[in-house]
Amino acid sequence: MGDRFEADYLLESPISIEAAAEAIAGEQSSGTFLPVPGETPELKARSAARVEAIRECDPAAAPALPGAATPSTPGTFRRAVVTISWPLANIGPSLPNLLATVAGNLFELKQVSGLRLLDIRLPRAFADAYAGPRFGIEGTRRLAGVNGRPLIGTIIKPSIGLTPEATAEAVDTLAGAGIDFIKDDELQSDGPGCPFEARARAVMDVIERHAQRSGMKVMFAFNLTGDLDEMRRRHDLVRDLGGTCVMASLNSVGLVGMIEFARHSELPVHAHRNGWGYLSRHPLLGWSYTAWQKIWRLVGCDHMHVNGLANKFSEDDDSVIAAARACLTPMFDDKPCVIMPVFSSGQTARQAPETFARLGSADLIHAAGGGIMAHPAGPAGGVTSMREAWEAAMAGTPLAAYAETRPALRQALETFR
Amino acid sequence: MGDRFEADYLLESPISIEAAAEAIAGEQSSGTFLPVPGETPELKARSAARVEAIRECDPAAAPALPGAATPSTPGTFRRAVVTISWPLANIGPSLPNLLATVAGNLFELKQVSGLRLLDIRLPRAFADAYAGPRFGIEGTRRLAGVNGRPLIGTIIKPSIGLTPEATAEAVDTLAGAGIDFIKDDELQSDGPGCPFEARARAVMDVIERHAQRSGMKVMFAFNLTGDLDEMRRRHDLVRDLGGTCVMASLNSVGLVGMIEFARHSELPVHAHRNGWGYLSRHPLLGWSYTAWQKIWRLVGCDHMHVNGLANKFSEDDDSVIAAARACLTPMFDDKPCVIMPVFSSGQTARQAPETFARLGSADLIHAAGGGIMAHPAGPAGGVTSMREAWEAAMAGTPLAAYAETRPALRQALETFR
Repeated sequence: MGDRFEADYLLESPISIEAAAEAIAGEQSSGTFLPVPGETPELKARSAARVEAIRECDPAAAPALPGAATPSTPGTFRRAVVTISWPLANIGPSLPNLLATVAGNLFELKQVSGLRLLDIRLPRAFADAYAGPRFGIEGTRRLAGVNGRPLIGTIIKPSIGLTPEATAEAVDTLAGAGIDFIKDDELQSDGPGCPFEARARAVMDVIERHAQRSGMKVMFAFNLTGDLDEMRRRHDLVRDLGGTCVMASLNSVGLVGMIEFARHSELPVHAHRNGWGYLSRHPLLGWSYTAWQKIWRLVGCDHMHVNGLANKFSEDDDSVIAAARACLTPMFDDKPCVIMPVFSSGQTARQAPETFARLGSADLIHAAGGGIMAHPAGPAGGVTSMREAWEAAMAGTPLAAYAETRPALRQALETFR
Repeated sequence: MGDRFEADYLLESPISIEAAAEAIAGEQSSGTFLPVPGETPELKARSAARVEAIRECDPAAAPALPGAATPSTPGTFRRAVVTISWPLANIGPSLPNLLATVAGNLFELKQVSGLRLLDIRLPRAFADAYAGPRFGIEGTRRLAGVNGRPLIGTIIKPSIGLTPEATAEAVDTLAGAGIDFIKDDELQSDGPGCPFEARARAVMDVIERHAQRSGMKVMFAFNLTGDLDEMRRRHDLVRDLGGTCVMASLNSVGLVGMIEFARHSELPVHAHRNGWGYLSRHPLLGWSYTAWQKIWRLVGCDHMHVNGLANKFSEDDDSVIAAARACLTPMFDDKPCVIMPVFSSGQTARQAPETFARLGSADLIHAAGGGIMAHPAGPAGGVTSMREAWEAAMAGTPLAAYAETRPALRQALETFR
């Protein structure tokens, strides 16, 4: 695989899978729909994509997506997992050109009535060309001062509308409650109602004050999503104020902006995936998280959102666990690029045992909004309940039993059902 | 609308449309799923999104997408076009933060079983914050030396695998044939088999030679898609060599990279939309082209791909024409940001009359691959046939009648059916 890169697709087609796979391979490499003079056997040998494997699945009776060709067998839309490979020499180790190749002009083909990119495998040259996460799990733990358990986190709410001073007040409460990690909501960046600089100064003032008291510096992910010069300026401000994390919305910034920003960043990059739904919610279109997260890890993201178990969105738990596992799976032997998955959305102490059991790791950020703020004993009770739930989970003790002597956890279990 | 921005969605919901629209508005502004202390009436008045309009359509019997809540009326998934507005003060005139707001964490909501962003309307402040197209229609025509008709263009084929010298040979043939515009394929950027610099030098050498002969400089869109520093360096090379256009893949580069690159560019930016299928092919998910193209025009793209009539992909002709019309529709009274739509994919002389009749404009690039290269009289015949087809179209003369005295057009009509 050293000189080729590969992609796996879930493919549905009105024609034969072989013909559809060849159409994709041709369209995305040296094929032309009418023969042209330069298309020599030597050129094809040098540049053509290759269908490497086809694993056929049960067909469908109706097309998943509109616009496909008339089926060659009426009422039959064949499905398969297909692997295609390309010569690295077509693009060199360039992530933007990788996207144009493995996820370019192919989802529109009439030969497909469904197409989803399931996974990608990249040769080692990509690991040399891109930095990967600068902090990852170890760097994040070092900066947050948290070992042997997840970082317990929360999100500033309301998402938008708080002034810098009101944001700092919320941080004061949360830092007093013993939280490890706080993030801006992705809607809050630098609007005139809550300018980034004023917010960063107010928040870091509070965080530094608590750090002097407790010896623990809360990790705050400041959402610096914006144009590139704004992002760099905001990053520098956070760094100079002693902050330990910055956050960006991947689908807002895009690949080249994130590459450039990650090269600049001296702080862990907390990657928000908002917009992920339009890339993934249809099961026969778009991107799987497994493929998608590899791009961003290579770019240099240190934390990536994976939703949470029993979340308030449409994603099921199997998909959430698969996404988190992907973040913890090494990409290259000597450059694993493993990062912290961020569990978030409708989280409380209740999800800790299953999250630990299914993931098999405590290397994660567990972020709860209401599960901390709406705890009957206040945010301190919420944070304590989350920590206790993880102690129980990692010790293999049922939550109810562990809660008998722990009021914060008991109240959480009574309140959040 | 001066202090608010708006988005229209096609929404399908298992619950009432009103409740689903309010869920989106809440999730994407100051709403919280559990009440929190800071959520005051003043904050809501300042920051909340507002449901402005609901136009209900016929419901569906089954959900368009998986993962939605159980329908409140069994077998009924309500559909509507919904308009939501937000205060500009939430984000300021920032395109990346606009995306996180109008296209963020909402496609995953359980309250929606289908959601597509149909259109956006932005206050004037965005026109001040972003440059818009620097060349647009007039600037492109001036550089190409083409007035009163479309630019006739083609794509270098095979897409990938030609050496710089072989690419220049193809350009030599095409320039000799009188072509106005040529583009790299989006698969071809800077792989080791065809390095960008060597290709640009070889191609511009040929183009300058023909320009000295004919007085017309062929516009060549060099695909410089890559990391930001690579894109800027490649742009500078093209500019210094006398080139008149550069091309980038929007979904590969992403928003912030394109903003930064467009600010740097002194040449028309030819925007390729490969990957558009994963954003748009499901009719109840993702983005409409009408909404999407507004972002890129504001960023500074001068040409945008819109597919073509009777194309080889899954998109129907109505959708293609709507996309091209959108590119020609002014965005702001004093800053229209109109750009050249690029018609491409399976194009020949045959599509000229309907393209002109339905678009009502000749301000476009009409790119044909096989329709030029596979013409029986060679590329010169292909280019001539495309020009003649546009003369006929703009004069309101049927192609067959116009072809009677014009062999190139006649051969095209006989060959491409």
